[in-house]
Amino acid sequence: MNNLGIVKRNITRADKAAVDKLSRFGVATIHEAMGRVGLMKPYMRPIYNEARICGTAVTVLLQPGDNWMMHVAAEQLQPGDVAVAACTTDNADGFFGDLLATSFQARGAVGLIIDGGVRDVKDLTEMNFPVFSKAINAKGTIKATLGSVNVPVVCAGAQVNPGDVVIADIDGVVVVPAAIAQKVADAAEAREANEGDKRAIFASGVLGLDYYKMREGLEKAGLRYVD
Amino acid sequence: MNNLGIVKRNITRADKAAVDKLSRFGVATIHEAMGRVGLMKPYMRPIYNEARICGTAVTVLLQPGDNWMMHVAAEQLQPGDVAVAACTTDNADGFFGDLLATSFQARGAVGLIIDGGVRDVKDLTEMNFPVFSKAINAKGTIKATLGSVNVPVVCAGAQVNPGDVVIADIDGVVVVPAAIAQKVADAAEAREANEGDKRAIFASGVLGLDYYKMREGLEKAGLRYVD
Amino acid sequence: MNNLGIVKRNITRADKAAVDKLSRFGVATIHEAMGRVGLMKPYMRPIYNEARICGTAVTVLLQPGDNWMMHVAAEQLQPGDVAVAACTTDNADGFFGDLLATSFQARGAVGLIIDGGVRDVKDLTEMNFPVFSKAINAKGTIKATLGSVNVPVVCAGAQVNPGDVVIADIDGVVVVPAAIAQKVADAAEAREANEGDKRAIFASGVLGLDYYKMREGLEKAGLRYVD
Amino acid sequence: MNNLGIVKRNITRADKAAVDKLSRFGVATIHEAMGRVGLMKPYMRPIYNEARICGTAVTVLLQPGDNWMMHVAAEQLQPGDVAVAACTTDNADGFFGDLLATSFQARGAVGLIIDGGVRDVKDLTEMNFPVFSKAINAKGTIKATLGSVNVPVVCAGAQVNPGDVVIADIDGVVVVPAAIAQKVADAAEAREANEGDKRAIFASGVLGLDYYKMREGLEKAGLRYVD
Amino acid sequence: MNNLGIVKRNITRADKAAVDKLSRFGVATIHEAMGRVGLMKPYMRPIYNEARICGTAVTVLLQPGDNWMMHVAAEQLQPGDVAVAACTTDNADGFFGDLLATSFQARGAVGLIIDGGVRDVKDLTEMNFPVFSKAINAKGTIKATLGSVNVPVVCAGAQVNPGDVVIADIDGVVVVPAAIAQKVADAAEAREANEGDKRAIFASGVLGLDYYKMREGLEKAGLRYVD
Amino acid sequence: MNNLGIVKRNITRADKAAVDKLSRFGVATIHEAMGRVGLMKPYMRPIYNEARICGTAVTVLLQPGDNWMMHVAAEQLQPGDVAVAACTTDNADGFFGDLLATSFQARGAVGLIIDGGVRDVKDLTEMNFPVFSKAINAKGTIKATLGSVNVPVVCAGAQVNPGDVVIADIDGVVVVPAAIAQKVADAAEAREANEGDKRAIFASGVLGLDYYKMREGLEKAGLRYVD
Repeated sequence: MNNLGIVKRNITRADKAAVDKLSRFGVATIHEAMGRVGLMKPYMRPIYNEARICGTAVTVLLQPGDNWMMHVAAEQLQPGDVAVAACTTDNADGFFGDLLATSFQARGAVGLIIDGGVRDVKDLTEMNFPVFSKAINAKGTIKATLGSVNVPVVCAGAQVNPGDVVIADIDGVVVVPAAIAQKVADAAEAREANEGDKRAIFASGVLGLDYYKMREGLEKAGLRYVD
Repeated sequence: MNNLGIVKRNITRADKAAVDKLSRFGVATIHEAMGRVGLMKPYMRPIYNEARICGTAVTVLLQPGDNWMMHVAAEQLQPGDVAVAACTTDNADGFFGDLLATSFQARGAVGLIIDGGVRDVKDLTEMNFPVFSKAINAKGTIKATLGSVNVPVVCAGAQVNPGDVVIADIDGVVVVPAAIAQKVADAAEAREANEGDKRAIFASGVLGLDYYKMREGLEKAGLRYVD
Repeated sequence: MNNLGIVKRNITRADKAAVDKLSRFGVATIHEAMGRVGLMKPYMRPIYNEARICGTAVTVLLQPGDNWMMHVAAEQLQPGDVAVAACTTDNADGFFGDLLATSFQARGAVGLIIDGGVRDVKDLTEMNFPVFSKAINAKGTIKATLGSVNVPVVCAGAQVNPGDVVIADIDGVVVVPAAIAQKVADAAEAREANEGDKRAIFASGVLGLDYYKMREGLEKAGLRYVD
Repeated sequence: MNNLGIVKRNITRADKAAVDKLSRFGVATIHEAMGRVGLMKPYMRPIYNEARICGTAVTVLLQPGDNWMMHVAAEQLQPGDVAVAACTTDNADGFFGDLLATSFQARGAVGLIIDGGVRDVKDLTEMNFPVFSKAINAKGTIKATLGSVNVPVVCAGAQVNPGDVVIADIDGVVVVPAAIAQKVADAAEAREANEGDKRAIFASGVLGLDYYKMREGLEKAGLRYVD
Repeated sequence: MNNLGIVKRNITRADKAAVDKLSRFGVATIHEAMGRVGLMKPYMRPIYNEARICGTAVTVLLQPGDNWMMHVAAEQLQPGDVAVAACTTDNADGFFGDLLATSFQARGAVGLIIDGGVRDVKDLTEMNFPVFSKAINAKGTIKATLGSVNVPVVCAGAQVNPGDVVIADIDGVVVVPAAIAQKVADAAEAREANEGDKRAIFASGVLGLDYYKMREGLEKAGLRYVD
Repeated sequence: MNNLGIVKRNITRADKAAVDKLSRFGVATIHEAMGRVGLMKPYMRPIYNEARICGTAVTVLLQPGDNWMMHVAAEQLQPGDVAVAACTTDNADGFFGDLLATSFQARGAVGLIIDGGVRDVKDLTEMNFPVFSKAINAKGTIKATLGSVNVPVVCAGAQVNPGDVVIADIDGVVVVPAAIAQKVADAAEAREANEGDKRAIFASGVLGLDYYKMREGLEKAGLRYVD
């Protein structure tokens, strides 16, 4: 009845080939390819503009003002994983800093998504350890209360299951369920295929109105041009 | 009675000489020169710090989650224009990305001001296409409902009429009505004229208290110095 | 009964040696060393990422939309001081720009912390004058109503007395009371001493779970590992 | 160039018959009848649930923390007017209390709409003086800086011209331009005419799906029913 | 891959006896009994203070500014159901008013939980139709784009599956998964059993410090009493 | 260096006669009488409209998500006290409910001011136990980490020392330092003395413009009347 105090060790990670393929696409493209679901709220922002993450989720459920579970999560991280930390309540304390990042990086983790605060941002930037968070906050945390690792969490409004693929870039953070990672990667590839062509066409001055044949639909909808 | 579903084609743009002159001054200076009106809310932020816009407004009234009118607006853009997009309700979806930016740039537009979200920010930055928005958001939009182009809009709290001059820099976004663009440009120039002098004076250690002769006013207002 | 309309000229600044020592440490470290008190709210952000401040506070109590007291404060600034400006109500107008910064810099001030807005950000960045604020806002202010200088203020949720040490970096802003500045600096030094060692240990793959001997405590708290 | 420091005495109020007719309808109905424009932001809330206003606007442009112009506005109020107060910047101080309300009521004003704070709420409630505001705040204001009376203002995101009809109830605040007040009142009456019938129909169990003949449209849009 | 455009007709509702039992307890008690999970964000507020809901969820996934799916959902409602409406993006338009409420009530629905806006609040209150929402907003919506009915949704931060029990009162909104409804109801009953006794004990002046035997734990944690 | 883990038992409460006298005045009046300082942020709201508090502060410093110190504070409460609870970080959990209220009431406490959440609001209302909070939230808390009782705190932006007088009503919450309680009470009485007269004068139609002799000042400031 209670999903606190649990660490799930064996999780099914999304297929590596699918993760690799997804890593070639931007968050906006993947979000479209998946049918416009799975996006975190736009308050999630990178600590530096070039930050980019694509990996398999190890989820963490934190208690407010307490980062004990981040240490527990470190042991569950494998190369290619991204830690995804939610909190049982709204809290923006600085749950994560340079020492934990050193540990995570040593385990092969590729980044952190946290619906809370982060600190030591200068060090994290120099380490090239990408973090997407809702706040930067020097306020540290204690280690006193149990949360969980690798249970399903809601992070910044999105459902994340352990093993899901999480992709993050300057446009936001999107979650791809492990079971459909390959399909979404294929769909993203298909979308991207003709993007270069389209860009050339629009750069030449062709309008979307004509390229997408919107004029008739607009007229039917009642658009009036006046002088 | 209803200003939806309208595209106004012929608009009176502010005089080009006035726009060129205004482009030499910062937003803070222009806002002062105009009597401290016409500023958008400070939640409007550039997608990259060096972003700067000075152009004549083509206004867009969007429906939430729908960017159909952005395509309609593209056709109305002329060299030197800036698109100014408001929404009929609060909405932070990603209405604009790299393909529309390519189209806008091909038309000669110098940037976008949008009281909503924007995406493909990495591409937009590489294209040097400046955007000021209230959010960055990977969430895309549909094309289903009519808004309008070149009707008066309220964007981030400021009234914008088609053809008005819009200037944006790191300090914010200000709107100068077309009819007074020349006067405001002249007033801005006058303000700026002695700024360099003042800066040298203050750098030499002269205090504003003395330079602006504030001591008497402060004393009259009752300021007490204590030890 | 009323602390408006007062300028206190003689304030007791924290010991210079303590300030110099504190300047070597980050905000997160100092906040920990002081027992996790004295931090401003995380909405206070630097106008450029590299901004860093460590100095003794000259406090300013502003009225909304009025920066008269900033000019009064300028005269009270001594080399090594940081101006800390609070407002009698929530207000995000642009109280401070390049001319005041020139004056402050000429007096030897090392930066500004303001629970309000700031403008001329491009100039301030070029001048290397660090500012931490709650907003960037082109909207200027008037000079009509008295506030105070060097009275105790609450700035962004933190109590600041004149002469206190204020340290600011990308992680936030922390206030160290003058009376304990040396003790806090020593405590910060002690904390930092073994940080380099710890980083090497974690980089080698040792887990915090083992290094901090957390496993027993977690088991006692009831943590269950499941497969 | 500057609309501060002005009091316009002669304004054209909306036709009284139109105002009376509009007073019979709710804000939601009028907003629909006008084509879904003119609504203030939903953060505007009544100080008591039964508050209701319908009157012609006398507009006030306030400076932050300063209610001088409220006294100037009092003299311009005529029976049936509603004061609509905007501020030159975001500010939630308590600009208005029981003494001003006594004055306004003595002039025949029917209420206040203010994009700021209000106080003495217990007294205002006992006086049955309806106020819609963005905050309740005991913080008082000074009388030092000029704003204006009866200039066009943007209040809570809506454009208001002096003489416009403003209607407010528990659902929000809507502004009807004076020139179209009669037309909007007629349109609202037409909308309301068959509401009673519709309510009886829906109460009998008929679905909107059938009454509005939505099933075909939904099918065309691709809606799939699954078990 | 896409959960838009779907209406699931056959859903498994929580056992009626469990729902009836849960209806006897407050949201705070049920949230405790379930292990402190399943609570919606506290921005969800009742439209009138006495509003109270306990029913089985029919979920609705809305598009911003579009309430088409509310009509589709009406047909799926059965006596004892509560409609739980999420939106694909943040949006506070008025999706729901008195006519839909009449329809919902005719179907036997016991209320609405909506992560968006609601209008016609006076009518809804007179109808005794309880609604918990994030906003009150006169702004109406269109009927143009497909969402879904009875798919899993995240509403105000909580995961809701069709058929789950949703309980709402002045303290907030909590979701109990259908599969554990009976267990949670039993646990809530157990918690409540000795509440009356405890209240009498505390009313007599016994302190929680003694009743809960906290003094030793506080001493161990290092609490110091000073004079 | 650290003010956590401390309970101060002997505090100097404001003089009872001063507290009694202050209880006769509203928050707005007292705030004015004290020179417009000491007001909490306007996000602090009563759980029911008639809630009113005037008492001497017993301060509580809470940890996020932890109400252990509320139980410790209960023992320090004396008849006429009001508990004033701050938190070491932003947190809106439900720290307080009906059992603690029963205990507080048994000790003679007259209410609670909390910069956090509260629950069991229906019970609290029936008990006539007034609470002013920043949120209503069913989410309960744990009892694991030490805060303090009767240390100085910053609550909702205002400095509160143990023994200070705290007055709260529908207009907000104001803090009067114990040392000046009598003076402020006298000043409030003086302000209130001629309020009844003034109200009669304004009700008769006399304008503030004339009563306060504002016309000359407005003219000097440059106010222009236009037709």
